[in-house]
Amino acid sequence: MPPVSPLAPKGGFPELPVIRGAAFATAQAGVRYKERTDVMLARLAPGTVMAGVFTRSATRSAAVLDCQAKIVHGSPEGAGIVVNSGNANAFTGGAGMRAVEAVAEAAASALGVPAERVFTSSTGVIGEPLPFERIVAKLDEMSGALSENGIAGAARAIMTTDTFPKGAGATIEIGGKVVNIAGIAKGSGMIQPDMATMLSYVFTDAEVDRTWLQDALRDLTELTFNSITVDSDTSTSDTLLLAATGASGVNVTGNGDFVKALEGVLLDLAQQIVRDGEGATKFVEVAVTGAASDEDARKVALSIANSPLVKTAIAGEDPNWGRIVMAVGKSGAAADRDLLSIRFGEILVAERGWVSPAYREADGADYMKGEELVISVDLGIGEGTSTVWTCDLTHRYIEINADYRS
Amino acid sequence: MPPVSPLAPKGGFPELPVIRGAAFATAQAGVRYKERTDVMLARLAPGTVMAGVFTRSATRSAAVLDCQAKIVHGSPEGAGIVVNSGNANAFTGGAGMRAVEAVAEAAASALGVPAERVFTSSTGVIGEPLPFERIVAKLDEMSGALSENGIAGAARAIMTTDTFPKGAGATIEIGGKVVNIAGIAKGSGMIQPDMATMLSYVFTDAEVDRTWLQDALRDLTELTFNSITVDSDTSTSDTLLLAATGASGVNVTGNGDFVKALEGVLLDLAQQIVRDGEGATKFVEVAVTGAASDEDARKVALSIANSPLVKTAIAGEDPNWGRIVMAVGKSGAAADRDLLSIRFGEILVAERGWVSPAYREADGADYMKGEELVISVDLGIGEGTSTVWTCDLTHRYIEINADYRS
Repeated sequence: MPPVSPLAPKGGFPELPVIRGAAFATAQAGVRYKERTDVMLARLAPGTVMAGVFTRSATRSAAVLDCQAKIVHGSPEGAGIVVNSGNANAFTGGAGMRAVEAVAEAAASALGVPAERVFTSSTGVIGEPLPFERIVAKLDEMSGALSENGIAGAARAIMTTDTFPKGAGATIEIGGKVVNIAGIAKGSGMIQPDMATMLSYVFTDAEVDRTWLQDALRDLTELTFNSITVDSDTSTSDTLLLAATGASGVNVTGNGDFVKALEGVLLDLAQQIVRDGEGATKFVEVAVTGAASDEDARKVALSIANSPLVKTAIAGEDPNWGRIVMAVGKSGAAADRDLLSIRFGEILVAERGWVSPAYREADGADYMKGEELVISVDLGIGEGTSTVWTCDLTHRYIEINADYRS
Repeated sequence: MPPVSPLAPKGGFPELPVIRGAAFATAQAGVRYKERTDVMLARLAPGTVMAGVFTRSATRSAAVLDCQAKIVHGSPEGAGIVVNSGNANAFTGGAGMRAVEAVAEAAASALGVPAERVFTSSTGVIGEPLPFERIVAKLDEMSGALSENGIAGAARAIMTTDTFPKGAGATIEIGGKVVNIAGIAKGSGMIQPDMATMLSYVFTDAEVDRTWLQDALRDLTELTFNSITVDSDTSTSDTLLLAATGASGVNVTGNGDFVKALEGVLLDLAQQIVRDGEGATKFVEVAVTGAASDEDARKVALSIANSPLVKTAIAGEDPNWGRIVMAVGKSGAAADRDLLSIRFGEILVAERGWVSPAYREADGADYMKGEELVISVDLGIGEGTSTVWTCDLTHRYIEINADYRS
């Protein structure tokens, strides 16, 4: 077992609110890992509304393709989610889709819902056939063990190289009634934005219009899961599913408080993925302002957050702002050296094309010793802004990835 | 001193042909490094034609801006090149340009050429003022020591994190007369395509039309320096200068043999930069065919060559073709999983959306033990092709870059 990331939330897995209408179970199916759970099953009550955002990879997995086909159907029936870790069932040819269908049909039968309402995900090694029969064999047992309190166990069952399970929740009051949100996620490497995320499942007992929920989820994904990067690599399996059971009896369609609470849960989960970035020792916010457009700001933020030279400098606690200048320069965004300013936290490092007269290297070096860093870049050109979150690039990343499979 | 890269050319620095009309000298100016040469001076005879390709970084250095302004002037006078290592004179505000002017003027006076014909480059740390007076102080001494045989020394003086000096040359006969080409380059990290290169200076005694030479150099740069990547990071200083002295009396304008010989020299230098990629232990050719367009093929090739997960798998000698599928998927190029095939050298690994029936993991693992690897991807869609060269991502890269400056 790898040690838990030093950036893991200090309190451990959070207390999540119970989502009425959602129940969870896990099993040890032995897909790949031994002596740990590797499958989760969720059952959603009749009336549940589903929304989802998925990877845009051209080589996305069979399960993603299947979810994308199913997510557009509204349906009053219940629904199910089955997720396995250890094998991504990606690039497995026609056998990949047959495996998805077999799992979905078996889960549908165990849960008493239509197969078109069963969403599956697989995460792990690419290119090896999924031993789906091991999952199928556990579905009846899991369906008999479903519990509204099972979400923490579900968060553990979907882990691969993760060093801690990831959960976040919120409870809000709308018109005197309580609405709950609870979500889990997994992800550590092969993380880059411009997609959904690795895997994340969020549940709420809110009642809501499906198309509104889908639009809200897509918008919030841009600000949360699509604004994180560990290593610039995009998974073939990335999936974010949101299930709204309606059991609270509170309709949240168009409700700003709900959107804000949901954004908080998604951002918390996304940042936990960065905090468990493979080999991460620093959690870094890159905040870009003053760009010609939000799109340009995003280009600059990602160019900094994905630069191996910036990330290794951070690992070395080196306040090497020259590499930030380099990353701004290569981003493709409009920039003017003489209008650029750079801050480490509150420390003004560079302005007007050169190091700030007041900057002392010792201050920068002290700042870089922190575990949570904020790098701010103002381009001084316009009003465009973007914030992304990333981690450093360390020896441990190389260790993990130079022999993950062998 | 770091150990020489295991991928360095086995024969050491090559014997380069003497370029009539070009002479070189070096000095220990103490810009940053101690007890090694850190400045080179080249003098080009009257009648020399200059061509150049430069970084497209938005934060490019003062010297690059100055070279770009000067390269468009044809002139019958002689010319000079001054290059220092240890300090990039980049992001140094107005002082940066004043340093460039001081060096150019002093060199012009020492060589007896106009300052508009003196091209300077600086490579090393970003954001620190260039102690240009140390360079200026050495120019008279260097100008008195110029030698047609000094190019090997020049290759050493421009090194920063390079572990070996880089040179390549060619001699061809045109119409019974000899034309020579000799070039040097430096570069090891902060290397990505879509720019000129790190620093490279190529000399020929050919006679040639300036605009034709400039066009030819730009085209060849796309196939050579712009087709390498070490770490996806783009320097603020990248410069490729080509000086044609005309001393051979052979006009090569439009000559295909000359173009071919020049391409060979540029490709050799570019590949030597990859062979000296920071921490590199494997030299990797990524050859993409069957794409919808050459542009799409290049996207796929660079996506593979820059993927941290592919590069760490190569470092670990892991035939992890799933990560190649991932990199194809995230590239943004048109791709169809079921038409994709992947080869390691001659070994067919995957075809039609899954692992090839004939592929044995042991063969892939054996292949990955080699020092020179070829990864071929055929997209099966069209006629687009692209080849890029890269290296693996190892612990040594982290070591070098986590405390290069501190």
